[in-house]
Amino acid sequence: MISLERAIRFEEVDAAGILFFARFLEYCHDGMDRFFAGVPGGYVGLITKRRVGFPAVHVEADFNAPLRYGDTTRIDVTVPRIGTSSCTFRYAFYRVADGAAVAVISHVVVSTNLDTMTKVTLPDDCRALLEAHPA
Amino acid sequence: MISLERAIRFEEVDAAGILFFARFLEYCHDGMDRFFAGVPGGYVGLITKRRVGFPAVHVEADFNAPLRYGDTTRIDVTVPRIGTSSCTFRYAFYRVADGAAVAVISHVVVSTNLDTMTKVTLPDDCRALLEAHPA
Amino acid sequence: MISLERAIRFEEVDAAGILFFARFLEYCHDGMDRFFAGVPGGYVGLITKRRVGFPAVHVEADFNAPLRYGDTTRIDVTVPRIGTSSCTFRYAFYRVADGAAVAVISHVVVSTNLDTMTKVTLPDDCRALLEAHPA
Amino acid sequence: MISLERAIRFEEVDAAGILFFARFLEYCHDGMDRFFAGVPGGYVGLITKRRVGFPAVHVEADFNAPLRYGDTTRIDVTVPRIGTSSCTFRYAFYRVADGAAVAVISHVVVSTNLDTMTKVTLPDDCRALLEAHPA
Repeated sequence: MISLERAIRFEEVDAAGILFFARFLEYCHDGMDRFFAGVPGGYVGLITKRRVGFPAVHVEADFNAPLRYGDTTRIDVTVPRIGTSSCTFRYAFYRVADGAAVAVISHVVVSTNLDTMTKVTLPDDCRALLEAHPA
Repeated sequence: MISLERAIRFEEVDAAGILFFARFLEYCHDGMDRFFAGVPGGYVGLITKRRVGFPAVHVEADFNAPLRYGDTTRIDVTVPRIGTSSCTFRYAFYRVADGAAVAVISHVVVSTNLDTMTKVTLPDDCRALLEAHPA
Repeated sequence: MISLERAIRFEEVDAAGILFFARFLEYCHDGMDRFFAGVPGGYVGLITKRRVGFPAVHVEADFNAPLRYGDTTRIDVTVPRIGTSSCTFRYAFYRVADGAAVAVISHVVVSTNLDTMTKVTLPDDCRALLEAHPA
Repeated sequence: MISLERAIRFEEVDAAGILFFARFLEYCHDGMDRFFAGVPGGYVGLITKRRVGFPAVHVEADFNAPLRYGDTTRIDVTVPRIGTSSCTFRYAFYRVADGAAVAVISHVVVSTNLDTMTKVTLPDDCRALLEAHPA
């Protein structure tokens, strides 16, 4: 499991005063980005040098409690499933102040050649990293 | 069914050159906003005057094809399920140029008093509108 | 002068409840995008086919009144200055409900080859369009 | 002077592949937020507890070099001017990899009661902090 914390930013709340639901997926992506810091060159290197990306093919999200400006969330990232060219990330969101379980998001991505936009086998270093973080 | 079209904006694509996946939820919200144009005062009136909002409690998304800058998407919005205080919106995304099925997103929302953040029975005019747009 | 109207979106306000100041520049870009609808292929064609873009080199903004969720703004776009490879757009923002002068933003852009990121002479059709909309 | 570093995020670039110009103002706001970490309760406390905000009344930006996905920027924040109820922040953006001067942004804000949206004298602790970071 890798964990990250993120403070809700001033401009990320909506007219109802809570973190806008689409923003949760930005936070997930941030979690995936930090996850891939574990391969040489990181996520940036995958995208810009190796031209391997991980577009989402499926997302499932349960929202249990809101986050507001002033809150900090902790996100625990695990990998419940690894396939040949795809894998599933799981992000568990907590509110740091009181430990409330805020949301759980499941995110299925496919290892993709960004130039041809066709799926490719998970690179070995990515697979090893994924295997090191089971759910 | 209500439909809307939206051109992908210059700043909505990501470093892989495709509509960022979190943006799809913004488009869904836009669809819900336009859906509620069918009640007096619209979604704005619900939020700012009547203080009834529709936070998401569950989202499920399947992504089948990318959208790029220059594409326009058509979004067909229907309501497959209506409960006492919750309902489910379904958004089917198509690429206008070639009719490709881009994504299908299911969005469960709960009618909520925004001052107390507690759930409330679906207002009658909202329910009538929802019932007029079955899946 | 070309004019556009835009309703402030639910997710575009900040924790102070007003349109986040960075969003004004998104609205400006939207205005520029719609402005270039006046050349064949529009702004999309310039960016994706002709590979000519208009990165900002200078922005000056005065903010006089806030915009909130529920407001609609009208933006009047004019072109006070045209150079060899650059030009200045001026965006005057008004609140539609009461006509309040919300903001005035000046936006200097440079006609740029997006592959080499070097400046190029303003394309003739762009120049003609710009000249048709003096301040 | 206070400094912060920020990596350009995957979703912050535009269809031209560079950090979208409106995003620079988000970065400025982030800089201001971190600046006010120097008062008790920080910027969050000012906004949510003390109900004092700092809406922009004027922004001036010069953009000299682009930022791309994979770049990290360093932002040096100083305060060139302090008035009774307003002050000016200056943000100098550099590209960390090569030290390139990317942008300079001047940001005039007015100390504002967020409930009445009227200007107020700069709180003493804010003023002291501002005075400690001259240009």
